Amino acid sequence: MDFTEKRLHEAAIIIDAVCPLLEDQGRIADYRAGGLTAIAPTVGVWDGAMVTLRTIGAWHKLLRERDDLILVRIAADIRKAKALGKTGIIMHFQGPAPIEDSLDLVDAFKALGVGVMQLAYNVKNRLGDGCEERTDAGLSRFGLQVVERMNQARMIVDCSHTGVRTTMDAIEYSSAPVIISHANAKSVYPSPRNISDELIKAIAKSGGTIGVVGFPGFVSGDKRPTIDQFIDHIAYMCDLVGTQYITLGIDYYGGQSPYVDERAATRMYERALANNSWSPKAYPAPPHYYPAGIETPKTMLALTEALLRRGFTAEDIRKIYGENLLRIYENIWGE
Amino acid sequence: MDFTEKRLHEAAIIIDAVCPLLEDQGRIADYRAGGLTAIAPTVGVWDGAMVTLRTIGAWHKLLRERDDLILVRIAADIRKAKALGKTGIIMHFQGPAPIEDSLDLVDAFKALGVGVMQLAYNVKNRLGDGCEERTDAGLSRFGLQVVERMNQARMIVDCSHTGVRTTMDAIEYSSAPVIISHANAKSVYPSPRNISDELIKAIAKSGGTIGVVGFPGFVSGDKRPTIDQFIDHIAYMCDLVGTQYITLGIDYYGGQSPYVDERAATRMYERALANNSWSPKAYPAPPHYYPAGIETPKTMLALTEALLRRGFTAEDIRKIYGENLLRIYENIWGE
Repeated sequence: MDFTEKRLHEAAIIIDAVCPLLEDQGRIADYRAGGLTAIAPTVGVWDGAMVTLRTIGAWHKLLRERDDLILVRIAADIRKAKALGKTGIIMHFQGPAPIEDSLDLVDAFKALGVGVMQLAYNVKNRLGDGCEERTDAGLSRFGLQVVERMNQARMIVDCSHTGVRTTMDAIEYSSAPVIISHANAKSVYPSPRNISDELIKAIAKSGGTIGVVGFPGFVSGDKRPTIDQFIDHIAYMCDLVGTQYITLGIDYYGGQSPYVDERAATRMYERALANNSWSPKAYPAPPHYYPAGIETPKTMLALTEALLRRGFTAEDIRKIYGENLLRIYENIWGE
Repeated sequence: MDFTEKRLHEAAIIIDAVCPLLEDQGRIADYRAGGLTAIAPTVGVWDGAMVTLRTIGAWHKLLRERDDLILVRIAADIRKAKALGKTGIIMHFQGPAPIEDSLDLVDAFKALGVGVMQLAYNVKNRLGDGCEERTDAGLSRFGLQVVERMNQARMIVDCSHTGVRTTMDAIEYSSAPVIISHANAKSVYPSPRNISDELIKAIAKSGGTIGVVGFPGFVSGDKRPTIDQFIDHIAYMCDLVGTQYITLGIDYYGGQSPYVDERAATRMYERALANNSWSPKAYPAPPHYYPAGIETPKTMLALTEALLRRGFTAEDIRKIYGENLLRIYENIWGE
């Protein structure tokens, strides 16, 4: 390991914008070991307001009890976490179920610290369509109202897992940049969860960002993707729209190896298929191995090494790791 | 009107700690007209987490939209409101229904800005007994846990409307001062909602405060209490425990004259009797006229005039109006 690589990694602000692995709060330590500055637990996907509120309550209890964590409400909280050697916690929703049928719940959850909400998760909902639906009719009337309310409440609109037409509607109607927190390039690997060049360009044009994701089924056709296959997505999207629009949304999750054994992963997988949240087309059966070298967040330094090897500059890496998302956060949440 | 009275009133920090009238947010203007610095809408009493969350969401929307309001999370927010000529909004619950069966919801609602929660509202609940119950067995096991969690989360324990034994338990088990945000002295007027000398002393001994209340049925046997009958309660409690423990919890509410006509008030009253939240013993039938001269918060200056006339010093008045509650807020919420 080269001294320069380690110093670059340690000095950078590193944000992983999608961390459902943190449904078990005990795994914060793995991200810290990997040098992450701010991480984003998924605090809501499918449950309504009631269950989600309890989940968020438990996070606030943890934030109160642990002096090494900072709730991220504005961009400065991430810079503060970096300066103090603490870990920033960014709360995000991977679907709009928590707001049920109520615009005021957008304000309520924003007040609780939820800074980002995805408009759909693979399937149709009140707002619009998911990216694995059989139809995609764009945003509903309520969906348009939600986007407007999110703009007013300074909650970031995230179109990961969302249908193309619904995403295009969101980009058209949102007065703020729209992000795709986690998706790879369809031109590099054609998963239904990955996105077209047209969509990548539209997000960049809105001023938003696209986060590269490490879930193996979105990286390549291989059971154990290499770190270079992962970087292929970064390189392709950077070439297409510029390094200022690409970020990390690696999406380490609770069903992956080595966090669970294959039997537990299979049970989780079958549940996800049964309730339509996943389809076999986009989600191969477990085991799920994240790219070799960064199988868990603990060894994130390997990504810095590999990016430098591939010719990314220190400036590129700092942008992709943190500065690009910070720009969005400053713009939408406030400095 | 004397210049000195007006100047004292305008310079004082005035906190009314119980303002259910603000269920209609349009009535903030009446409090501002009366010179109030911080007011406390009741944002939850009987509804569970779900409905309460929507209510609080609507408040956050208002706070976002109106530059003349400040959400009060710590004591400094009230001093800031005073300095900037804005109105501080203190969110409080008049009962524990919003937390349902969940300690984490204490943290969730605290994170939303709810700084004070009453343990009961007249009747028995999961935590303990109300002051109009036929029994009073003290705090339940869950009730003890809630008090502990409120202490940890820095949410103020309020024993208004709460049974005597349950209140005594709260005082014994709470590590922080316990307040009674709104109740008058039983020795002055024997309503079941008023409190004994013993209880007034116990609250003061805990370091808490007692807020005088203007609801006519708790002030005197008269349909239209005088302002001096209202001040009788202040004077009595100040004599008993000292001016440093007495505050304002006037409790202007939506069913009082002149805010509604007698017919609407009667409908509200009958509903309250039907669901046992009120009893005819403590709550006389409407119309409900608040003390003459301060029938609404708009004319609060009349209270300053009347207190001076009764011999209260400017220092006494500043304490009762705001400094005593600020001391509690600094202690529990933080400076």
